[in-house]
Amino acid sequence: MESSRAWRRPTLDAVAARAGVSTATVSNALNGTGRLSEATRQRVLATARELGYAPASTARALARGSTGVLGLTMTTYGDLPVSYTEIPYYAALTLSAMAAAHERGYLLLTMPSTMSPWMWLNTPMDGVIHVEPRADDPVAALLRERGIPMVSEGRPPRPHPCDAWVDSDHESGLRLLLDHLAESGARRIGLSLPVHDDAYPQLVAHAYRCWCEEHRRPALVEEYHLLPDYFTAEQEAVGRLLDRDPRPDAVIGVYSDSGHNILAVARRHGLRVPRDLLVACVSEDPEYASTAPPVTTLGLRPDLVGTEAVDLLISVINSRSVVNRRRLVPPVLLPRRSTRREASRASAAP
Amino acid sequence: MESSRAWRRPTLDAVAARAGVSTATVSNALNGTGRLSEATRQRVLATARELGYAPASTARALARGSTGVLGLTMTTYGDLPVSYTEIPYYAALTLSAMAAAHERGYLLLTMPSTMSPWMWLNTPMDGVIHVEPRADDPVAALLRERGIPMVSEGRPPRPHPCDAWVDSDHESGLRLLLDHLAESGARRIGLSLPVHDDAYPQLVAHAYRCWCEEHRRPALVEEYHLLPDYFTAEQEAVGRLLDRDPRPDAVIGVYSDSGHNILAVARRHGLRVPRDLLVACVSEDPEYASTAPPVTTLGLRPDLVGTEAVDLLISVINSRSVVNRRRLVPPVLLPRRSTRREASRASAAP
Repeated sequence: MESSRAWRRPTLDAVAARAGVSTATVSNALNGTGRLSEATRQRVLATARELGYAPASTARALARGSTGVLGLTMTTYGDLPVSYTEIPYYAALTLSAMAAAHERGYLLLTMPSTMSPWMWLNTPMDGVIHVEPRADDPVAALLRERGIPMVSEGRPPRPHPCDAWVDSDHESGLRLLLDHLAESGARRIGLSLPVHDDAYPQLVAHAYRCWCEEHRRPALVEEYHLLPDYFTAEQEAVGRLLDRDPRPDAVIGVYSDSGHNILAVARRHGLRVPRDLLVACVSEDPEYASTAPPVTTLGLRPDLVGTEAVDLLISVINSRSVVNRRRLVPPVLLPRRSTRREASRASAAP
Repeated sequence: MESSRAWRRPTLDAVAARAGVSTATVSNALNGTGRLSEATRQRVLATARELGYAPASTARALARGSTGVLGLTMTTYGDLPVSYTEIPYYAALTLSAMAAAHERGYLLLTMPSTMSPWMWLNTPMDGVIHVEPRADDPVAALLRERGIPMVSEGRPPRPHPCDAWVDSDHESGLRLLLDHLAESGARRIGLSLPVHDDAYPQLVAHAYRCWCEEHRRPALVEEYHLLPDYFTAEQEAVGRLLDRDPRPDAVIGVYSDSGHNILAVARRHGLRVPRDLLVACVSEDPEYASTAPPVTTLGLRPDLVGTEAVDLLISVINSRSVVNRRRLVPPVLLPRRSTRREASRASAAP
């Protein structure tokens, strides 16, 4: 095999010549298109691999003298005792960012959430997707200082004018969910709200309070801290909501496990779902299709978010004067039995 | 912020001094242990982040002059028209390898499956996990040539004496599945088998034929090619199995979508599952809990496999003379309705 100092990047023509086919056939083989015999397709692919033929986007990236590497890092939830890959949203986001980066010819480098940026910045990369930036995030400051393009996933709590970010449209999503609950007959909707310094809790709280004001409903909020024990803390907050008099007739949570937490507390309070209490949460977890009862969820579409983040980052890398530096992805509601009250019940005075 | 040329790696003592606490408190805060007030914990974590304090494993890795980066690459299924992250097994494997690498203080670099190794080898890394190596794999040859430690996930088809690999124990898994089918009354078990040059299909075929011989059952195998259209090809193979006379009373498939394929063909043949035909496949996909009927699956535990692969790779990086260079992970059977025949039916002559 040639040493890396001696190679010249192989062309489509070279692959065609070596395989004894036309360039159109090579292109079809690489893209999985056209009508080729299986044997021919495999032979052409093997030849391309042998010669080290690379997709055009990668060749262009390397020609520009760049590294061909995009970074993905998350520090906000780095103090949780689980890897962020165990939270369904971040798992899906990571995988979709990986697929999108790979499709554009980039490698994806993922950093441990507990690692300081000055450590992973030793590995050169063309740009970074930074997930869930905190207020005054040291990562953002460091990248800006070094001139490394960055896109936030999750808008920064206090965005700079030039910040590029992709986020769920939390406002429209929460309204979708609250309207659904109101249509199902809910009159007093409680919110279990985390205290944390990324933008998410503030956006949720703001959207909730605005909706309550517009609909002349009481804003019923109980807050909790994620550490040291998220499960206990949220369940205690939900307990405080359900202890209020008059009691809420619906409770929503904003994290992936919130649905489980609310169901557990409702059970302890002797409340049946949905008969006595409607329940919903923001989650990607397909397990909610099988809970008792199945829980209505608002999905944030991490597959779309990841793809948009990579696309925006590559745009920013290629041209610092990208005009549209903010992208919102609309959430989707997945109604299940936990918010499906009988029609006769819904019209009864609660 | 200090420039990277001027920094000295901060110590636990430095964090303690800056935060005004004991080193024990710092340690507890970082590990999520001990009894600290939430405010203290957050303050210590913020101080650690500020100073750029790194976990000991990362510091050790950097001190050895290594890159602190592990690579993950897959080329075998690179010619499929989907990103490998869309196949549940590889998605789960990638995430668990990422979590395991991060926990040990390493960054994880993932490569597009269509990219030639000589392109990504420009980015330095300490070692590589190579997923599903083919026979005479150019990736393996290139890494060996450059002296870069490698662990295969999926044993190589023809292993070198020094090869390190982690794989599912396909032999024990398939026996588990075949014994289960036999216990459910199956007498003629058909196998839908892909043609592909990684070790997996050969291991499955070998285990199946041995089992059939031991149990004096006919070996009923139909093969298919993955390209250009995997779904059609497998369904045609299953069709050929079901057209045999006498007909199989059970069919197993070895890929994640095989269950869907077999159900579709059974439906077209007017066969009811499990009444007329038992069905099972090798898959991680939780969707099989909701198919009509739910399909029995053999799970390969990619979460365990990924963790073992990272652990083995780090052992090999740290000491070239690792004795136990092969690790087998036993699969688990998840029986569902597709293999649950009524007792009276099971004893009837098929």
